[in-house]
Amino acid sequence: MNRGKFITFEGTEGVGKSTQLATARDALEVAGKTVVVTREPGGTPMAEAIRELLLSPRDEAVNDLTELLLMFAARAQHLHSLILPALQQGTWVLCDRFTDATYAYQGGGRGVPQEQIAVLEQLVQGEVRPDHVILLDAPVEVGMARARNRSAPDRFERETTAFFQRIRDCYLQRAEQHPLRYHVVDAAQPIDDVSRQVSGLITSLLA
Amino acid sequence: MNRGKFITFEGTEGVGKSTQLATARDALEVAGKTVVVTREPGGTPMAEAIRELLLSPRDEAVNDLTELLLMFAARAQHLHSLILPALQQGTWVLCDRFTDATYAYQGGGRGVPQEQIAVLEQLVQGEVRPDHVILLDAPVEVGMARARNRSAPDRFERETTAFFQRIRDCYLQRAEQHPLRYHVVDAAQPIDDVSRQVSGLITSLLA
Repeated sequence: MNRGKFITFEGTEGVGKSTQLATARDALEVAGKTVVVTREPGGTPMAEAIRELLLSPRDEAVNDLTELLLMFAARAQHLHSLILPALQQGTWVLCDRFTDATYAYQGGGRGVPQEQIAVLEQLVQGEVRPDHVILLDAPVEVGMARARNRSAPDRFERETTAFFQRIRDCYLQRAEQHPLRYHVVDAAQPIDDVSRQVSGLITSLLA
Repeated sequence: MNRGKFITFEGTEGVGKSTQLATARDALEVAGKTVVVTREPGGTPMAEAIRELLLSPRDEAVNDLTELLLMFAARAQHLHSLILPALQQGTWVLCDRFTDATYAYQGGGRGVPQEQIAVLEQLVQGEVRPDHVILLDAPVEVGMARARNRSAPDRFERETTAFFQRIRDCYLQRAEQHPLRYHVVDAAQPIDDVSRQVSGLITSLLA
């Protein structure tokens, strides 16, 4: 049986990841693929409990390394008990954020050195990387305006525009460094155009 | 102002760490020292929330790396927001378990390679190590019999005798490797004798 593909969706707040994950799932299912849609941090009960710890606003200042280690603790659980077994069974895994988000948020956003992230990436993932990263890119103000219309802001959504600008810059820089793996989609377009582009991308990955 | 000393208490279940932490605190306070007694995993609200995640029995099998990363996530928070600031203010910090427990439990007990633990120790602690480790050592059956008389067993206390034997072996091996830092106390003695020995040890550290 062929191994499934591991495709991650990245971007700052409000760029439409949930909508495009659904678009991609539909395109894959129409093509007869078995698909799992999951998210980080999270994806298993234990990893979702870690997500809750990470996202809840709290009085205590959270140390940057604590945040980084919690992200990778959730990832180890998710990767080894859900993602890798699914891929081995031929299932395609669509994931809302993965390690590229750690480079962007904890690295670009918080200023954690990239080498520290790379050490943990190696420890938890070995040579495993997403087959494809779909980066939904939009100016920070566009995404933030959309995100503000949703629920109460979590610990990350409370950050400043400058924080999200650093994250966007980091994503775009990684896209340049990994041109074969990254696919940048302009998420400031009308939503139907974004969906059409994501569908086309998925079709080309199936070919 | 003189930096405080960082003293950790180690050992398997039921060896009397809580009692001996109180003994040591009393001896230090009599000598006029300011003392903080704390524990791992835990010591701050965020780190205690991580402890709860680690210790609660659950249906989902917890990945060894997830457990290891959660231990160090709690440690980063504890070290940087409580232990190091206290030591810098001249406070003596007495801690129920620290990284030696990670080598013993996750390394010896679970079989996680020591090098993986060392990578995280370096990331989170840099050059910081406990000034002294007081290892309360007793045959596994002695400690387990005592621990069984306490509350419902947590996720670790549910493990087998062989698991705790590997942990004890690992502690004793580390004590041999670090003879200046480790102080091994026979915890199978009558409790008053153990306390007398711990008090004497603290007095000698004050000299």
